[in-house]
Amino acid sequence: MAKESKLTSTALATDDETSHLYRILTRANQIASNTELDDLLDQMLDLIIEVCGGNAGTLYLLDAERDELEFKVIRGPNSDQSLIGKRIKTDLGIVGATMKQTQPLVIENLPDDPRWQKIANSSKDLRNVISTPLYLRGGPIGVVQVFNYSHTPLHIVQMLSARMASEIEKAVLLEASQGRNARLEALIDIIGIIGSNLDRDRVLQLIVRYARDLLHAEHASLFLIDEERDDIVLHVSSSETKVPELRVPRGKGIIGHAIESGDILFVPNVHEDERHFAQAEPITGIATTSLIAVPLVTRTVQLGQGLGASHTKIIGGIEAINRKDGTFTREDAELLLTLATQAATVLQIAKLYEEANELFLDTIQAMAASIDAKDPYTNGHSRRVSEFSVAIGRQMNLPPEELHQLRIGALLHDIGKIGIPDHILGKPGRLTEEESNKMKEHPTIGADIMKNVRLLREELPALAEHHEHIDGTGYPNGLRGEQISLFGRIVAAADVFDALTSDRPYRRALDVEEVLHRMQRECGAHFDEACVRALIQAYLAGEIKTQMDRQTPK
Amino acid sequence: MAKESKLTSTALATDDETSHLYRILTRANQIASNTELDDLLDQMLDLIIEVCGGNAGTLYLLDAERDELEFKVIRGPNSDQSLIGKRIKTDLGIVGATMKQTQPLVIENLPDDPRWQKIANSSKDLRNVISTPLYLRGGPIGVVQVFNYSHTPLHIVQMLSARMASEIEKAVLLEASQGRNARLEALIDIIGIIGSNLDRDRVLQLIVRYARDLLHAEHASLFLIDEERDDIVLHVSSSETKVPELRVPRGKGIIGHAIESGDILFVPNVHEDERHFAQAEPITGIATTSLIAVPLVTRTVQLGQGLGASHTKIIGGIEAINRKDGTFTREDAELLLTLATQAATVLQIAKLYEEANELFLDTIQAMAASIDAKDPYTNGHSRRVSEFSVAIGRQMNLPPEELHQLRIGALLHDIGKIGIPDHILGKPGRLTEEESNKMKEHPTIGADIMKNVRLLREELPALAEHHEHIDGTGYPNGLRGEQISLFGRIVAAADVFDALTSDRPYRRALDVEEVLHRMQRECGAHFDEACVRALIQAYLAGEIKTQMDRQTPK
Repeated sequence: MAKESKLTSTALATDDETSHLYRILTRANQIASNTELDDLLDQMLDLIIEVCGGNAGTLYLLDAERDELEFKVIRGPNSDQSLIGKRIKTDLGIVGATMKQTQPLVIENLPDDPRWQKIANSSKDLRNVISTPLYLRGGPIGVVQVFNYSHTPLHIVQMLSARMASEIEKAVLLEASQGRNARLEALIDIIGIIGSNLDRDRVLQLIVRYARDLLHAEHASLFLIDEERDDIVLHVSSSETKVPELRVPRGKGIIGHAIESGDILFVPNVHEDERHFAQAEPITGIATTSLIAVPLVTRTVQLGQGLGASHTKIIGGIEAINRKDGTFTREDAELLLTLATQAATVLQIAKLYEEANELFLDTIQAMAASIDAKDPYTNGHSRRVSEFSVAIGRQMNLPPEELHQLRIGALLHDIGKIGIPDHILGKPGRLTEEESNKMKEHPTIGADIMKNVRLLREELPALAEHHEHIDGTGYPNGLRGEQISLFGRIVAAADVFDALTSDRPYRRALDVEEVLHRMQRECGAHFDEACVRALIQAYLAGEIKTQMDRQTPK
Repeated sequence: MAKESKLTSTALATDDETSHLYRILTRANQIASNTELDDLLDQMLDLIIEVCGGNAGTLYLLDAERDELEFKVIRGPNSDQSLIGKRIKTDLGIVGATMKQTQPLVIENLPDDPRWQKIANSSKDLRNVISTPLYLRGGPIGVVQVFNYSHTPLHIVQMLSARMASEIEKAVLLEASQGRNARLEALIDIIGIIGSNLDRDRVLQLIVRYARDLLHAEHASLFLIDEERDDIVLHVSSSETKVPELRVPRGKGIIGHAIESGDILFVPNVHEDERHFAQAEPITGIATTSLIAVPLVTRTVQLGQGLGASHTKIIGGIEAINRKDGTFTREDAELLLTLATQAATVLQIAKLYEEANELFLDTIQAMAASIDAKDPYTNGHSRRVSEFSVAIGRQMNLPPEELHQLRIGALLHDIGKIGIPDHILGKPGRLTEEESNKMKEHPTIGADIMKNVRLLREELPALAEHHEHIDGTGYPNGLRGEQISLFGRIVAAADVFDALTSDRPYRRALDVEEVLHRMQRECGAHFDEACVRALIQAYLAGEIKTQMDRQTPK
């Protein structure tokens, strides 16, 4: 059988000094199990003070980039906590002297030391110090000091300092890594939100606000190049309140330089930078200090099979202003650039898509106008009917996609007149019955022309049913009530309203209020009451501009 | 003046035992400054073996989730390194017994201990063991063992074990955090690349390949719901080679369940899961073991001012197959879901954009057809001229965006005939001079109708110049040579080619080769030589389908 040794913690010690050392090391291990840097520093300093029988202590950490030591912890009676975060150059005072050696520096009479700087009120109570460098692989990373010590166990102090240096390094690494993780995760969340909402201006607004928050900045703004005016214009700001128009000449300001050069620009203090465009400050009301600016670059965007290809181009820039803590870092630049890429993509896609829609609407409008033009008295009719229909639909709270369909359907409502002979369309007087019957074919012809356009299915009733009456007396199919589609009923009201409020060869335009009264009387017979009510609401809201309104100079 | 104490490392020690302890602690501090977990474990174990005067050792770490200990390090003569990575249950053997206590377990005669399991050939040389739990805040996280010890400095072993536990925890945390950083950074890079290239199928291909690589999977695939056939179809695979068509019934397979439920599904072994769709394996040739599947969800996508809004919908799913190391994790699921969101956005945007283009092309084609229809003998003319023009442009290597413009311009080339009276358009015989002059206005009328459509500017020459001749004898403006735009020259060739190869009231369609010969003779007079050459090349490549070809059943 095996013999087992069970030992208690005290039994481990072989003599008093070793036992004391083990107790301290056990405490150090417990403290080190803390991964929060601030707690770790506090408790380690307390332990060192206790070991030396002191009553105060300080801890400084090195900022190697700026060659400065930063106050991290102060312990002791009446300690001035406002010193925390303050910085001193690494070659000054006792701290500076400590950085130059690898072993503890013991000063028995502090007030007499010429290097001693009384930086706080409580400094006057400090009599002596053990000042030890925190040494890590060939270089100091900070200084730990114990004041008013009663004994100098330098071997333990040095051991604990070495341990502290190692723990600090790990905690700093972990904190940096976890902080970076949190920012990257936030960025990915943001990208997810951006990707799922492509309402352009809303997305750009989100992007600048996320940029502001993620970079700990006070403001962020997105500028676009205005090709026509050849300048740079503030397009979206992170501000919750309305921002006045801001235009910057090409190549002016930090943002102008970033846009012109395509570079990422960091400026710790704009007032020391001659590129700063100071004229912007009174307009925005923002007192700028630090600033980071990145260009907005669109790369190749290709949608579908080679449609709408485009190439690399700087279209604007994003800037973040006034970092709340410290100065902007290379990591901030990376994050801002990632957000800028997202913004550029959103802008590019929205532009392609809006252009595709603009092209479509303008083209069918031009065609509808050319068909209207065959009868000189219906000049601009299709366009007005489209606008009136949308105004009615809006009053009826149709969702955006249905309003879009309604706009298209109404624009095309008379397209079937392509198939009506010119002599009937252009005839100034009254039509014969035969001519009138031919004319009444235009809704059917229009629907026939467009029936094979798969994506116009929703719009077709506007073409086919705009001459149906609610009581079933209309044409071509004598539909009644809800047999007539909503689009058909809306366009019917808009169509008649425009006809009656426009000049005709055989009569002048009628007065709008008279027309609306007449149409109200025809509700349930010719018109759908809800549509006429919505038309009246739209008229009262100032959204209806008749042919006469358009002709009369303001 | 202050008195300074300078002390060397050896001077710190007060007696032999403490001096020995300091040397060990200094070594431990040096080892701990290593942030690479594997190096740290190796060197710490070596130090403990040395302290005990042993010649072999092992280190196990706990996998709390699976309640197993994993072999991490083995040191010693003839040690069997293949044991590394092997796992044992936490309640077995001496290691299991060690996990149950907080202090070292010393076994002086190992071969006689009933708990001892000789798992390797070299085990026979092991005489005794100090087996110590690695204890961290209330629980063991592993076991360290020293074999063939010559003395038992348990206090030091325990101290070093405590230190080791703390260092292991920090190194594991840091490694996990840095590993996560690397994946998140890769993900952000990927999103940037995706965002800058919206050629749909190329992007989806990228997404599944990145999914595969980022998840350390052997394969990844994207499935889409096919609404028409009411099943799920493999749309893109990460495979570099062509994958056969794969269709899965709705709700079948792991992927089908993920799509139907909207859940993320982890399956460590599909053959133990009744949802597995085994029929897929012979088709794909992939022997699936582990699998993770996430749904592809499109959220609200709004482009422009409320155009093309849509709502939350599951449109498919992505799966990753066979993780190369271990099983898929929650973090894998997060990454896959982020990529799936990107894929869904790309699909949604591409769909909106393609639909906008389809709507436009189909609508203007329907209108052009209705104008062609006014002259029954030009039935389908505009569409054919558009196709021939694109075929010519393709032979001339025009870039995709210009081919797109050419398609539109050619489709609209005769749109000005809206303004030509029906009796002229539909006249079966020869036109009078007056009628002919009227007819010759159609290019100008067409350009006038469309001149205000901002985004059709590139296309306008196809309308205005398709009756100009290269020698200046055409109409309306008698342009010559390169004064005529490329689109004008291309459409001129396509227009005449279609007219001559179609039946007309006064003659039958001419033979294609005869027409091409005739056009070749007219190069430099009527036609641009390069356009006719490209037309002939397109014809020889089988890309030209005349009116006759379309009428004749195959």
